[in-house]
Amino acid sequence: MHNIVVIGSSGHGRVVIDAIEREARFHIAGVIDTFKPVGHTCLGYQVLGDELRLPDIIRNYDIYGGAVAIGDNWLRHKVVDRIRAVVPDFRFVTVTHPSAQIAGSARVAAGTVVLPGAIVAANAEIGEFCIVSTKASLDHDGVMGTFSSFAPAVTAGGEVTIKPFAAVLLGANIIHSISIGEHSVVGAGSLVLRDVPDRVVAYGLPARVIRTRQPGEPYLRVNSGSVVSRETVALEDGSPHARCAPANVSAQFPWA
Amino acid sequence: MHNIVVIGSSGHGRVVIDAIEREARFHIAGVIDTFKPVGHTCLGYQVLGDELRLPDIIRNYDIYGGAVAIGDNWLRHKVVDRIRAVVPDFRFVTVTHPSAQIAGSARVAAGTVVLPGAIVAANAEIGEFCIVSTKASLDHDGVMGTFSSFAPAVTAGGEVTIKPFAAVLLGANIIHSISIGEHSVVGAGSLVLRDVPDRVVAYGLPARVIRTRQPGEPYLRVNSGSVVSRETVALEDGSPHARCAPANVSAQFPWA
Amino acid sequence: MHNIVVIGSSGHGRVVIDAIEREARFHIAGVIDTFKPVGHTCLGYQVLGDELRLPDIIRNYDIYGGAVAIGDNWLRHKVVDRIRAVVPDFRFVTVTHPSAQIAGSARVAAGTVVLPGAIVAANAEIGEFCIVSTKASLDHDGVMGTFSSFAPAVTAGGEVTIKPFAAVLLGANIIHSISIGEHSVVGAGSLVLRDVPDRVVAYGLPARVIRTRQPGEPYLRVNSGSVVSRETVALEDGSPHARCAPANVSAQFPWA
Repeated sequence: MHNIVVIGSSGHGRVVIDAIEREARFHIAGVIDTFKPVGHTCLGYQVLGDELRLPDIIRNYDIYGGAVAIGDNWLRHKVVDRIRAVVPDFRFVTVTHPSAQIAGSARVAAGTVVLPGAIVAANAEIGEFCIVSTKASLDHDGVMGTFSSFAPAVTAGGEVTIKPFAAVLLGANIIHSISIGEHSVVGAGSLVLRDVPDRVVAYGLPARVIRTRQPGEPYLRVNSGSVVSRETVALEDGSPHARCAPANVSAQFPWA
Repeated sequence: MHNIVVIGSSGHGRVVIDAIEREARFHIAGVIDTFKPVGHTCLGYQVLGDELRLPDIIRNYDIYGGAVAIGDNWLRHKVVDRIRAVVPDFRFVTVTHPSAQIAGSARVAAGTVVLPGAIVAANAEIGEFCIVSTKASLDHDGVMGTFSSFAPAVTAGGEVTIKPFAAVLLGANIIHSISIGEHSVVGAGSLVLRDVPDRVVAYGLPARVIRTRQPGEPYLRVNSGSVVSRETVALEDGSPHARCAPANVSAQFPWA
Repeated sequence: MHNIVVIGSSGHGRVVIDAIEREARFHIAGVIDTFKPVGHTCLGYQVLGDELRLPDIIRNYDIYGGAVAIGDNWLRHKVVDRIRAVVPDFRFVTVTHPSAQIAGSARVAAGTVVLPGAIVAANAEIGEFCIVSTKASLDHDGVMGTFSSFAPAVTAGGEVTIKPFAAVLLGANIIHSISIGEHSVVGAGSLVLRDVPDRVVAYGLPARVIRTRQPGEPYLRVNSGSVVSRETVALEDGSPHARCAPANVSAQFPWA
């Protein structure tokens, strides 16, 4: 069994480690993390160093490749870039939890992780360095571009296209044939009934564009520190989440 | 292993083909499709002809039966009728993806397909020619009538009754003990808290009846052509999707 | 294989029985139920008596322990208390449907049931006597306190804390790092973006506190009789479920 490293040791890192252990295709030699000291452990695996130390680590631990376990799409991209600057031919492996269902005609590229209960249906195609999280599904003929992500329980109908770096957050539903633009974020619990353009934040039932968004803006909740960006707060809490029915709609139906 | 045909070669057809391959209970001899030319392929399987050619096809390919892979409930019904007119004793098989969980005390009738990650709980009963799509679930003691369907990620609580031809669309949630009427459609992302009568379109959070509906009206998004019925559009996009809280509700709670 | 009893014979009881049969770790000797006569059957298993008869039943049937199959958190607590009063060292078993995915680093305590398609992610911890129902998931580092419950299709992001006796109802989504208070109830289909305090009912998109709640107040739909408490009705139907977007939000986006 080849030795690999897991790059990232946060909560998402623990989930990826669990999937690798369950898949039993690779042996985890340790963890690469920029923000944690060498020797810090994650589910029993030691932090071996940061990306800059990879050449040494590869030699010392006979490393075949690595799994990227960083939840934020932009940060994951930057770390992959940094690794390739140091080790140009570094081999990124695909991780698929054994309970995930990947159709025979679907394709999942290198560096992508597919987590417990996730489903990738017939003829779907998932690019490099994506995340298909817990119970998320991409139905038939769907496409996920590089560095895009589905949070837990996201459901995409058939022929949905997720452009590179787009992030669809927890529990969002996307109906058949919709496209989500590059670097766009779809908020948790949203119902997407129309295409979402590039570089926006959209949410609600049905989802609507709330504002524009620059690549790299944070969109995940940060809870271990006190610094939460204004953007994150705006996305996740007080924001309006539904549009109102015209008053006369309810009058037409006896029990509405 | 018996030879079967798959009737329908759209995206839903690809999903059904994948489930049949994974189940490995039948060998697919080819595809029956009215709208595609003979020789056209679907995931590598050839279109052998339309329903009218079934008697020849059965003879030539030693066909044991067939799986219906048509997503629209009414169209599926019409095709089944047409097949029975030509081959009265045609054998419709049940397809169950191996990842689907069907309780020992549940029953699933002929012609029904149960897709990846779907769950049919204890004592539930699913009639002929239904679809339980990706990650959809019917909980304990539930009933689905003939030609009804759950789109991906639909969740029905215990003792829910889905009447014949009813369609519940992507991501809808139906609480315990609810009934959905014949030929009714529940819109994507809806939360159903009260019974839905026959022959209506209902959606929203909570779902309310939006309008009446005639059997056979289209309800699925058509994306390969330019002809999208007015009804489909009304169902899927601009429609009001939520009712407003009275203004004074939020005043009662400090963080509402 | 040890003999066990199943305590409770309602619809939830049938689901638990199915999981035990599928898990094939125990043999079900019969059912304990206070409200059904001895000899009444549930999925073929006989009611052997109520909790008071447990000492006799344990002796007569060589009972190793039991699985609690009562859906209401408070009632489940009362029944466990009653059993412990009669048989202080009664052994409560954990039930895990084989399709459920429990991470190697997760812990699930005695008396808890984890149903089909449910997922308990890395480093999560589930206390005694919880329910993780059909397709529900608790993501990495999550915590569920004793006697808490997830209804079908509930999704909790990473680092979510569910306090004891809290009930999260069908299809609710809880984003990363949220806490749900003791004895609180989160309504079906809700999207929880902020912490929910103790002893309240909260629901909507996003969820807001609707009212306070006393421990033991009914929250599940009762459908086999005519007595439905006012609280249950209030929770499940006509209640406002969404807050309105300010009128000027939609004006900013061409297709909102």
